[in-house]
Amino acid sequence: MVSERIRQALAGSSAIRAMFIEGKALAEKVGAENVYDFSLGNPATEAPKALNEAIKEILDEEDSLIIHGYMDNSGYEDVRQSVADNLNRRFGTHFNYHNIIMTVGAAGGLNIIFKTILDPGSEVMVFAPYFGEYRSYAANFDGKLVEVFPNTADFQPDMEDFEKKITPKTRAVIVNTPNNPTGVIYSQETMKKIASILCAKEQEYGTDIYLISDEPYRELVYDGAKEDFLTKYYHNTLVGYSFSKSLSLPGERIGYVVVPDEAADSDLLKDGINVSNRTLGFVNAPSLMQKAVARCLEEKTNVGFYDGNRILLYEELTKLGFTCIKPQGAFYLWMKSPVEAEEEFVRAAKKYNILFVKGSAFACPGYVRIAYCVSKEMIERSLPAFKELAKEYGLA
Amino acid sequence: MVSERIRQALAGSSAIRAMFIEGKALAEKVGAENVYDFSLGNPATEAPKALNEAIKEILDEEDSLIIHGYMDNSGYEDVRQSVADNLNRRFGTHFNYHNIIMTVGAAGGLNIIFKTILDPGSEVMVFAPYFGEYRSYAANFDGKLVEVFPNTADFQPDMEDFEKKITPKTRAVIVNTPNNPTGVIYSQETMKKIASILCAKEQEYGTDIYLISDEPYRELVYDGAKEDFLTKYYHNTLVGYSFSKSLSLPGERIGYVVVPDEAADSDLLKDGINVSNRTLGFVNAPSLMQKAVARCLEEKTNVGFYDGNRILLYEELTKLGFTCIKPQGAFYLWMKSPVEAEEEFVRAAKKYNILFVKGSAFACPGYVRIAYCVSKEMIERSLPAFKELAKEYGLA
Repeated sequence: MVSERIRQALAGSSAIRAMFIEGKALAEKVGAENVYDFSLGNPATEAPKALNEAIKEILDEEDSLIIHGYMDNSGYEDVRQSVADNLNRRFGTHFNYHNIIMTVGAAGGLNIIFKTILDPGSEVMVFAPYFGEYRSYAANFDGKLVEVFPNTADFQPDMEDFEKKITPKTRAVIVNTPNNPTGVIYSQETMKKIASILCAKEQEYGTDIYLISDEPYRELVYDGAKEDFLTKYYHNTLVGYSFSKSLSLPGERIGYVVVPDEAADSDLLKDGINVSNRTLGFVNAPSLMQKAVARCLEEKTNVGFYDGNRILLYEELTKLGFTCIKPQGAFYLWMKSPVEAEEEFVRAAKKYNILFVKGSAFACPGYVRIAYCVSKEMIERSLPAFKELAKEYGLA
Repeated sequence: MVSERIRQALAGSSAIRAMFIEGKALAEKVGAENVYDFSLGNPATEAPKALNEAIKEILDEEDSLIIHGYMDNSGYEDVRQSVADNLNRRFGTHFNYHNIIMTVGAAGGLNIIFKTILDPGSEVMVFAPYFGEYRSYAANFDGKLVEVFPNTADFQPDMEDFEKKITPKTRAVIVNTPNNPTGVIYSQETMKKIASILCAKEQEYGTDIYLISDEPYRELVYDGAKEDFLTKYYHNTLVGYSFSKSLSLPGERIGYVVVPDEAADSDLLKDGINVSNRTLGFVNAPSLMQKAVARCLEEKTNVGFYDGNRILLYEELTKLGFTCIKPQGAFYLWMKSPVEAEEEFVRAAKKYNILFVKGSAFACPGYVRIAYCVSKEMIERSLPAFKELAKEYGLA
C-alpha cells in the first residue's frame, strides 16, 4: 500500500536516473568499454588530492566527538564563517556565518528553502529547459511549477513570456546558470532584466518574490568567462550551492544555502530554513565533510579536463553534421535532435550503445543533453558510434 | 515571506534543540564546567577507533571517483549486502541487498518511508511518550498523528487504548524500543500483542498497516537484555536504523531502512523509498560514510560507558528522593517531576544550571527526560546541584 503521490512519481520517474541504471545493465551485457554513457552528471575527474588529505588531517588533529557529533542544525559556526569569508573575498559580498546554512547538497538546500517559503498553491517559476527535479521539489510542498517557454534562439530566458506569467502567487523563480542542461551562461543583461522585472512585479503586487539561484556549476566556466554570484543583481536572491561538481563530491551530499541580510524577512527565513533542515529529516549536513570542504574552499576541480572534453565533443559532433549549442559553462552539451521527436533519436543512439537524455525530461523536446563529465578516452572511443548515428540520419 | 506551516513550526519548535542552544549560551556565561546539560542525545563516548581507521583505509585503497561519486539512490550494493549479511548473522533474518536502503540517518529514513506510504489524512499512531519529531515527519506528508495514552505504570504501551484508536485510515504505527525518552525496552509480550492486534485490524478493515520500528538504540541494552530485531513479530514491519548512537556518529547522518520481502507491496515500497530518497532531496546516504560503516558493522560503541552513567545517575537520584524509571536501554533516564506541572520543575533546575527536557515535549507531562550520554565526570559534578534541587522540593 503505497501513497497515490508515490504511485505517480514511480510512473513518471527520472529519465536521467533510468538511463544511469540502463547504462549499468548495458555495460554488464556488452562490456563497459563498449558503452558510451553520457547520461549522468557524475564527474569523471577526481576530487582534489587536498580533499582526501584534509579528511585525514581532521581525523588526526581534531576531537572525534566534535568531528562526528551534532552541531547547530545550520552547521558548524567556524565552517559557515569560512564559507562566508571565501565568498566575500571572491565576490565582494558581506556575509558572515549567520548568512550561511550548510546543507545536504543543493538538492537538500532547495528543498529546505521551498519548505520555508511555499504555501500550498504557491507558484515556482522555471525557465525551460530546466532540471526536471525542480518539479518534485516544488511538489513536495504543494507548490505549482510555472514554466517559461524556452527561447531556442540562444537559450537565454524568454523575458516576455517570463513577465507575462508572474502572478500574485509567484513566490519563487529558479535560475540555474551555468545551465543544466544547455551549458549556457545567463548574461549580465539577462540577470539585470530578470531583476528589474521582479522588482516591478513585487511593487505591482505588493509581494516578495525570491530568486533562487541553484549554482552547482558556478565554477565551471570556459573561454575566459568569469565566475559570477547572483546576490548582487536582486535583493531577494537566495543561493543553493553544492560541492558536487566543484570538488567532485556528488555522493557526499554537501552544500550550503546563502540567505543575504537584505532578503525580505531575512531572519525569519534563516530560522525557517534551519528548522526545515531538522524537520525534513536532514538534521544537518554531514559533519566530517563540512569540515573537509571548509579546508578546501580555495581548491578547484580540474576545469581544464572538462574544457578539453567540451571542445573535443563540440567540434567532432559539429563536424559530423549535428547542431549543437556551444557550451559556455557546466558540463553538458545541448544538441538538436535531427528529428522532432527526440525520443526516437535517443532510441536510435542506444543501438550504437550511446546513452544521452531526451530534452523532454527538461521540458524542451527536440533536443538531447549529452553530459561530457566523462573520460576523454570514452569520448574518443564513442566517435565512430556517433558517426554511424549521424549516417543513419543522413548527416555525415 | 515565509510559509504558514513554517510560521507554526517556528512557534512550536523543538524543546530539545532549544535546550541545546540554551546550554551553549549558559556555558558561555558561567563556564562550561558549571553547566550540567542533560538535554541532547549527543554521545559523549567516541566513535570506535576502527571507524576513523576505516575511513583512512578507504581513502588510501579505493578509487576516489567511486568513494565520493554517485551510486544508486539506495546506496552501494556491496554496502547494502554487508548490512544484510550482518543482520542475517545476528538475527537469523534472510535479507539481501534489495531489502536494504542506505539513508541520511534514521530521520531521513523515516521521512522517505512516510513519503512513500502516507496519503493526506493517513493516520500514524505513536505510543506516548514519544520522540516529538515524529509529529513533524508525519506532518511533512499531511499525515495525522494519533497518540496512544501513556501507561505510567511501567511505560509499556497501553494496549487497550491502542486497539481502540486503530481505524481504516491507520497506515503506520511507530515503535521505538529501547525507548526514547523512557529507557524502557518493550517486552516480547508487548511486541506479540501489538502484532496480533495489528493482524486482526488488517483483517477487519482489509488494509495494510505498517509497523515502523525506529531503532537507533537497538544495541544499547543493559542488565543482560538481548538485542532484538522486530521483523520477526509482524509481517508488515519496516525498520529505520541509525548509526548515530551505535557508532557515535550523530553528525554524519548515516543509517538504513529495511523493507522485508514479506511486507505488503514490498517491491513497490522499495521502489517508492528509493525514489523518495531522491525527490525529497537526500539523493543518497553520504558515500564515504556508507563505505566506512560497512567496514565497522561488527564494532560496538562503549556500552559499559553508558551503563556506568546509568547506574550512577539512577542510584544517586533515587537516593535524593526522586522517582525514576530504571532504564533498561537507550541512554535516557525518565524521572517523575515532584510537581505536576513539570515545566516549573525544569525552570527550577535551570537555577542550578541543570538542563533536562520537559515530558510535554514527548506528550507526557509530569515527567522529565535526563540524557545521560554525557561524561561521567559531569554527572558527578552535577550531584550537589541535584541535591539542592531535591531540597527545594523537600525531597532530600
